[in-house]
This record gives sequence, C-alpha cells and structure tokens, in this order.
Amino acid sequence: MALEVNEKIREGWVADIRDLQDRICSALEQSDGKARFREDVWDREGGGGGRTRVIGNGDVFEKGGVNTSVVFGEVTQPMRDQLKIEGDRWFACGLSLVLHPQNPFVPTVHCNYRMFEMADRNGKITDRWFGGGADLTPYYLFEEDAIHFHRTHKEACDRSDAALFPEFKKECDRYFVNHHRNGERRGIGGIFYDHKRANGDRSDAFWIELAHACGDAFLPAYLQIVERRRNMPFTGEHKHWQEIRRGRYVEFNLVHDRGTLFGLRTNGRTESILMSLPPTVRFEYDHQPDKGSAEELLLNVCLQPRDWV
Amino acid sequence: MALEVNEKIREGWVADIRDLQDRICSALEQSDGKARFREDVWDREGGGGGRTRVIGNGDVFEKGGVNTSVVFGEVTQPMRDQLKIEGDRWFACGLSLVLHPQNPFVPTVHCNYRMFEMADRNGKITDRWFGGGADLTPYYLFEEDAIHFHRTHKEACDRSDAALFPEFKKECDRYFVNHHRNGERRGIGGIFYDHKRANGDRSDAFWIELAHACGDAFLPAYLQIVERRRNMPFTGEHKHWQEIRRGRYVEFNLVHDRGTLFGLRTNGRTESILMSLPPTVRFEYDHQPDKGSAEELLLNVCLQPRDWV
Repeated sequence: MALEVNEKIREGWVADIRDLQDRICSALEQSDGKARFREDVWDREGGGGGRTRVIGNGDVFEKGGVNTSVVFGEVTQPMRDQLKIEGDRWFACGLSLVLHPQNPFVPTVHCNYRMFEMADRNGKITDRWFGGGADLTPYYLFEEDAIHFHRTHKEACDRSDAALFPEFKKECDRYFVNHHRNGERRGIGGIFYDHKRANGDRSDAFWIELAHACGDAFLPAYLQIVERRRNMPFTGEHKHWQEIRRGRYVEFNLVHDRGTLFGLRTNGRTESILMSLPPTVRFEYDHQPDKGSAEELLLNVCLQPRDWV
Repeated sequence: MALEVNEKIREGWVADIRDLQDRICSALEQSDGKARFREDVWDREGGGGGRTRVIGNGDVFEKGGVNTSVVFGEVTQPMRDQLKIEGDRWFACGLSLVLHPQNPFVPTVHCNYRMFEMADRNGKITDRWFGGGADLTPYYLFEEDAIHFHRTHKEACDRSDAALFPEFKKECDRYFVNHHRNGERRGIGGIFYDHKRANGDRSDAFWIELAHACGDAFLPAYLQIVERRRNMPFTGEHKHWQEIRRGRYVEFNLVHDRGTLFGLRTNGRTESILMSLPPTVRFEYDHQPDKGSAEELLLNVCLQPRDWV
C-alpha cells in the first residue's frame, strides 16, 4: 500500500494530540480540586518542540505530567547504530502522561500515543507507524480496579477490531518488564502496541481512529479508580511500600524503557522526559514483603500477569 | 609482552580483594559506632559468586555496601554485541563499595578495584586488564575535603608513577557524567582508570601494586572527612537537597554506568549491583537551586570540574 504523503495526516494527528492534552489536563485539575498544571513550552535544538504540563502537591496527585511534543530532525549515526533507524529524516508527535498519586491506594498510571514518520532527503515520506498504550501500576491490588481499567480499554479497542485487545494486553505484559528482576512487571498491565503500519485492511486511518478511541478511554478508565480510592486512609507503612515500588518504576524507566532512552539519546528535553520519575522513592537492599501480606499479593500479580477481562 | 598465565596472579588478586573488604568493613563499623554489616554469600548461576556486605540505619551510614565478587563464564552473544567483548571465556574479580551517609554534609563515596581476564576455549588466558577508582559525591562543597580526598589518592598513585594521577583525575571527570544533563558530573571527581594492561615498563605487578596503594588510600581519604562533618547540624532543607542530588546519582548509575549495566546484562546478582542506589531519593520537575546558594555552588563544581591538588 502506497503511503499517503499528504500533510493532512500529520496536521490532523498533531491537532488531535493537542486537543487530547487539553481535555485530559482539564479533567485532572477538576479531579484533583487543588493543584493546577504549570505549562512550559519549549523548542528543540535540531527541530520541533513541545508543551510540557506538570502538576504537583495536589490533593490527589503528588507529581505528574501530561506532555505533547512534535519533534523532527536528521537521522544521526548514533540513532542508526543504537535505535536501528533507517532513512534520512524523522518526525515524531505524541502525547505522554504519567501520574503519581499521594495515596498509595490510588494507582500510578501512564499512557502514550505517538506517530513516527521517516522521510528521504527530499522530504518524501518513506515510512509511517503508530504506537501507544496505557498501563496501570497499583501499589495495592483491587481486582475491580484492574478489571475496570482493562475493560474500558478493551471496549475502546473492540470498536476497531476485537482481535486487538488480547494482542495488546499480551504486548503490555511483555514490554513493561524489569528483566533484571526475574521478569517482574512494573504494574498489572493495560495495553501496548508499536510499529503499527498501514497494511491490508488496516489503513493509517484505522490506526488513527484506534488512538482516538484509546486516548478517549483514558479519563473514564482512570478517574473512576481515583474516585474510589482517593479518600482511603493510609499509614506510613503503606507509603513506605509505595516508595519501594516506585523504585522499581525508576528502574524500568531508566534501564529498559525505549521511549525514555530514545528521548535521552536524541537530545530530547531531559526535564520533560524525566517528569515520569516518581516524587519520592526508596531503594532498600533485598526488600521482601511479608508472607501472605497485601504487599506480597501485589508483587505476585506483577510476577505472574493475569488476564483481567 | 607475553601474558603471565600462572594462577598466582588470579589467586593473589582474589585474596587481596577479600582482605581489603575485611579491613574496610571493620573500619567503617568502628567509624559508624552503631550499625553492623550484614553479609550475604551468594553463588552465580553460570559461574562464581560473591560476598555482599550491606550496612544501614547507622549513626553515620544511612545505607551502604562493600561487595566483592569472583565471577566467570562463557562469553555469550549478547555480551559480544552489547559489551564488545571478544574471546570465549571471561573472569572478573573486584571490590565495589558505595556509602550513602545520613548527614548531607558527609559526602557519598564510591570505590571499585577490579581485574578482568579473557581466555580461549582451552582456558588459556588471552587478555588481562585492570580497572579502578574512587570518586566523591558531596552535597555541599567543603574545599578542604575535596583537596584531602584527591591528595590522599594522588599520594597513592605517585608511589607508582607521578604521571598517573593527572590522567586518572581527568578520566574520572570524563566518566561520571550525566550526558543527558549538559555534562553535569555526579560528583566532584577522584580517580578512574580502566583497560590497563601489562605494557612496556608496566607489568601486571605494576597495576596490582597500584590497586593496593589506592585501595589502602580509601579509609584515610574518606574517614577523615566523615569525622569532620558527621556532627554538623542540618535541616530538612539540607536533607531535601541531598535527596535531589541522590536522584542524579540514580540517573547516572542506571543510564550510564558501565559496571551497573555489565552486571545487569551478565545475569549478575541484582540486589548486590543495585545496593549502590541511595536509600531515599526525590525527583522534582526542573529543580533549580537558588542563585548564590551553597546548593548552586555545589552544582557549579559538578558542571565545571576543578583540579583540587
């Protein structure tokens, strides 16, 4: 299938991503009730820029960011070597968000929807692909929350094709893994897809529509969980466990996450990339939850992913 | 120069490294006065093992480890690809320590002395090299401490060759860099060397003697600084800044440190490798110290390394 080379795909994608950012930030501020997003608009040396919005010290959100960026440039030799990218020029536009709540019973969440294009020296687009996903990182397991988050995303995927969700859930469990910790996942799943190209029945429009549906699913998937858990009383021990698990989040993001490493290696804006790191973190030698505890239960579902729907 | 293939080099190195571990742990316990090292002896699937000793919640040391390991195995394809290692079998033995003090006026310290060997299928040694170093990560700058740490290591190096210290200081400033943060160093320097082989006047014995001298320099270099600073009163703001800077320590170790990545990729013991991570850490979006503050002064010497002796 020939690539659609008109500018409309790119323009439409950028506009949709920015609109999604606005809607999500507005709903999160309303949910938090206290904190407001701070916006930093930045330019990238080499091409493009972004709109970073961060929130912190809220009633719900201890730290978080909802970022969009539109970045492009020449493919450099380190990119060819380290990122296995082919072509002369690259373009990327996406939204990426991470929210770290105060209350250890409210899960951390991440989602990201992105489009990449490669072009030759003359600017002719030679490749285009889409990626995205949303994953949940609870500190304590509430099965109804896990089911709700997955079901909401399943319904969004099913509108495009019922075959997608099972594949994306599996990919999510395969991607967010701390390989240096016996395959422990950073959370309990969600959806993840990457390198999705126009192919057969699935046009660019198919993948764009999917990203719309999944992007729109984020707020209903997450905010219902926030409402259920935000007022649950917690102790210093619950907070301690949250900070230990946040340490695993840091390990995944800095050692394994392709998005983070891509950003740091392509001269991305470090503060925007690393806004994903949790506000307070603990690293303890050989920390083990007590046998039969709620903490151990959570750890076990990170070690042995479950199908929630 | 033909490699000395007798077992004595290896045996001697292992014995010396273990002896150094014993002496350092004993002196650190005495300095701390409260905490004791816990020892975990472990075997590595694939070959070898180690002796991990960790300390925590002390009067001086909030978290730390003094580890030795003797590990070996077959060179795997991922090692060839990612670590650019050639040969059939590898052997490594070293000591690695990191100490994170409670008091933000006491610096974090790291040192590491190691020997690698490569061998062919028949066990014949085809290559041998030495590496090592010690570096200081203060949260507040005390010039006399920086000078003392460097002078003590300079004197140790000078006993082998006065040309070494200037080279090793430069290498240290070149190695411990958060490249994604405009070249910010994780600390204020020390010494670093790697891939040192028998060559010309410098035999294996030369590099072993150097590691002895530098290893022996650690206690006098560091404990005098501990004694000067351990009882200085500090506030929550000082602790906050320490935790922000510890975040940069985490970033360096997980994104850039060759030793950490080598360990995680060669199926090393994760808990022993990641004992280097600080106990409590903060990540804040776009944190900037106040103009003219003691915090900014420290940041500036991390951005612009100085020669301290």
